[in-house]
Amino acid sequence: MDLNSDLGESFGAWTMGDDAAILPHVTSANVACGFHGGDARTARVTCEAAVRHGVVVGAHVSYRDLAGFGRRFVDVAPAELTDEVVYQVGALQAIARASGTRVSYVKPHGALYNAVVHHESHARALVRGVLDVDPTLPVLVLPGSVVATVARDAGVRVVAEAFPDRAYAPDGTLVPRSHEGAVLHDAGAIAERAVRMATDGSVEAADGTSVRVDVETLCLHGDSPSAVAAAVATRRALDGAGVDVASFVRPHG
Amino acid sequence: MDLNSDLGESFGAWTMGDDAAILPHVTSANVACGFHGGDARTARVTCEAAVRHGVVVGAHVSYRDLAGFGRRFVDVAPAELTDEVVYQVGALQAIARASGTRVSYVKPHGALYNAVVHHESHARALVRGVLDVDPTLPVLVLPGSVVATVARDAGVRVVAEAFPDRAYAPDGTLVPRSHEGAVLHDAGAIAERAVRMATDGSVEAADGTSVRVDVETLCLHGDSPSAVAAAVATRRALDGAGVDVASFVRPHG
Amino acid sequence: MDLNSDLGESFGAWTMGDDAAILPHVTSANVACGFHGGDARTARVTCEAAVRHGVVVGAHVSYRDLAGFGRRFVDVAPAELTDEVVYQVGALQAIARASGTRVSYVKPHGALYNAVVHHESHARALVRGVLDVDPTLPVLVLPGSVVATVARDAGVRVVAEAFPDRAYAPDGTLVPRSHEGAVLHDAGAIAERAVRMATDGSVEAADGTSVRVDVETLCLHGDSPSAVAAAVATRRALDGAGVDVASFVRPHG
Amino acid sequence: MDLNSDLGESFGAWTMGDDAAILPHVTSANVACGFHGGDARTARVTCEAAVRHGVVVGAHVSYRDLAGFGRRFVDVAPAELTDEVVYQVGALQAIARASGTRVSYVKPHGALYNAVVHHESHARALVRGVLDVDPTLPVLVLPGSVVATVARDAGVRVVAEAFPDRAYAPDGTLVPRSHEGAVLHDAGAIAERAVRMATDGSVEAADGTSVRVDVETLCLHGDSPSAVAAAVATRRALDGAGVDVASFVRPHG
Repeated sequence: MDLNSDLGESFGAWTMGDDAAILPHVTSANVACGFHGGDARTARVTCEAAVRHGVVVGAHVSYRDLAGFGRRFVDVAPAELTDEVVYQVGALQAIARASGTRVSYVKPHGALYNAVVHHESHARALVRGVLDVDPTLPVLVLPGSVVATVARDAGVRVVAEAFPDRAYAPDGTLVPRSHEGAVLHDAGAIAERAVRMATDGSVEAADGTSVRVDVETLCLHGDSPSAVAAAVATRRALDGAGVDVASFVRPHG
Repeated sequence: MDLNSDLGESFGAWTMGDDAAILPHVTSANVACGFHGGDARTARVTCEAAVRHGVVVGAHVSYRDLAGFGRRFVDVAPAELTDEVVYQVGALQAIARASGTRVSYVKPHGALYNAVVHHESHARALVRGVLDVDPTLPVLVLPGSVVATVARDAGVRVVAEAFPDRAYAPDGTLVPRSHEGAVLHDAGAIAERAVRMATDGSVEAADGTSVRVDVETLCLHGDSPSAVAAAVATRRALDGAGVDVASFVRPHG
Repeated sequence: MDLNSDLGESFGAWTMGDDAAILPHVTSANVACGFHGGDARTARVTCEAAVRHGVVVGAHVSYRDLAGFGRRFVDVAPAELTDEVVYQVGALQAIARASGTRVSYVKPHGALYNAVVHHESHARALVRGVLDVDPTLPVLVLPGSVVATVARDAGVRVVAEAFPDRAYAPDGTLVPRSHEGAVLHDAGAIAERAVRMATDGSVEAADGTSVRVDVETLCLHGDSPSAVAAAVATRRALDGAGVDVASFVRPHG
Repeated sequence: MDLNSDLGESFGAWTMGDDAAILPHVTSANVACGFHGGDARTARVTCEAAVRHGVVVGAHVSYRDLAGFGRRFVDVAPAELTDEVVYQVGALQAIARASGTRVSYVKPHGALYNAVVHHESHARALVRGVLDVDPTLPVLVLPGSVVATVARDAGVRVVAEAFPDRAYAPDGTLVPRSHEGAVLHDAGAIAERAVRMATDGSVEAADGTSVRVDVETLCLHGDSPSAVAAAVATRRALDGAGVDVASFVRPHG
């Protein structure tokens, strides 16, 4: 099982997340490419740290919206979105190479991540961008999403992900953040869910039923002290349960 | 002799220069990378057009300053400038590959071009960026500049350029734009100077003396109707004089 | 009848529209505030030119999206949109005052203009921003839109506008741009429609029926030579028909 | 004696400084205007908090450089800098009014602050901007700087400031940050220096001699826990020493 986290999201003088605290516990780093966060220097420092920790680097691509941190849907033209994906991945590829590693996958960020769950033309535009830049790069997305189907149809490898700190509906979708109890904060409970996801391929839904989660990676957050604590607990619990925590690709560098 | 021109400098809804008019007459396209002009879509369209015309693509890197079109010195930290060069070249490399070509050289733009003539730490930062991204990429710069020395010392190929539409001082430097007569506008005169540069390796300085210009490329402008006319006249005159107008690298794609 | 046009949309080194050609023919200038186009210097130069021509200045507010020229819907939080309206209007108020005039109305731009026709929370956010900055400022919007209702309910004056160069459906809405014949290009026909709008309060719909257009201002475009020609013809035709072409507010300065 | 601090420097999703911790202890808030930090929403929230604490609001104007947090010299044209000052102050004026207060002074930020100590054309451009927007607004600057002279000559009130946490040279200038001991971190020592500045109009220079500091405001930092502690200690010490801690203007709202 892979553990991925959003990293390199600082911008200029502004810091985001505690990258140093989270890096030792994950196996894949979703590195911001400058469109929602990150900048050239931040990306470089993040890639170099990933190399030191043997963590695989992925390109965390976004709508072009620094002011909104990529969390707002932007009704961009599909052809432009495709080229923006190529641009972002390419920029990070060069930074990664200069840091002694390479980009091994693509993950959409924030509003783009949510949009391509159902927005077909943006899903196609994203996959087109991946095909244009390197058709062997897997995309890290929500299982059952439109983008997963579009990617598979196009011959792009899909890596499905689950969220141990999110409540699941009985149909396997995520309970919207606006709902009470949608996000879990207890480190122990999150770690327990991660172990069940990894060992049993299931999660307990909000109504107590069991839901299948057939995934290759779990997403850990590092944007608050309690999130870091949950990440640390999750990694420890997985290791303790004998889960082989490793990237879904072979590390480089 | 190579002919290079700044292309792909439009940004979103704004158009800059007449790329379609200038492309048929040059052999190298300095494509903006998004830091002074250009964006992912513009870069893609420009690279695809370059492929159609058999024109070689270079990365036109800049200080990060869209509001100032890269024409203002920015006192950026050298390590950041290096990473920004890597980022820009990498972004354009991916766009170029997706367009069926590749980045074959690096040219600094505007204020960065002028700064590295004498600003040693920015010159070193620029060359460091080129080394980090691909040490085989030549840099297109002003002969006699600090960056030319720094690049050569680092083993980076230097391609020297001259400006047929600029007045030269007797010592071979350019007459500053603020001086009367610093920029020539007569298409015929510009074309004539280009031919002399290409065939005799010299130019008539402002005081009438002859100055050596040992260069591999001539810079043509396309940002005004008269500039395009001068570019067209220059290409025709060079062809007519039997000059072998060709890129300093082999075209791809 | 007032004639309004989008002005001051250049950005840094990039030029947009032919402001000098359009200014003599209009009575209201929708000046960009820097969120979709324009910058401090451009706004200043535009306001000073408006003063010279006795043209009233309005704030042309937009989603924050320079890369998309404000033409893309951005799913911004309403409270943030309100503050962005206040910020934009305030910035232009200071520039206008420094230029010897003042901001006399607010007009939403591009995607925001289209959104507030039906998007209630963004319509409310826009009107809230106007109330926060100056409740006496009219808003220039599409008649029958949600924002018109919201504004009137809040006590904000609504100035309705029509488009002589756009085809109308029999129900009084605009034919979408994607439809054949949605935008008229013949200067004579556009001018004729403008005269009928001004003198008869009606326009011929796409199906030949007559539709009421009860408006105080007509929008003229200046982003192409043919658009400028249509603007010139429209102003001439209105003057010739004895229409009192004047701002809906009294000019200042 | 006034106590001023830089506030409202968060940007979108990124947080900067601990505004809530510092606000109760200062009398003037230098609020970012969006060019180096801050955005419309952040400025609004900051102005509203300033109103709650009875703190006066000033416009913290900067070079246009979000990526560099306004800490890098930008060689902007003076006329453009003037208009950018007008734009920034105007934007904050509207936000402040909407929050129940107003802009009572202007303070240059970061690289602009340092530049106008000696860079005459930028100093003149800054003062010109203040004159254009409101000639009654004081400017908060370093005593003995070029901008102080330019402002006074133009009839603009100058409010001189001192830095209790910075080492002073015997000639009254600040010891550059690059020097050992240039920045003090001990809260007690900083508070003591502030009291001496306020009661005796002097500070002990790095060589032990006494230097005159004839100022109306002291700058406190809030960008780190130790900086906040020093701010708290300074306010307490000043109050304890019977210093009348109050704005150099009358509070509004």
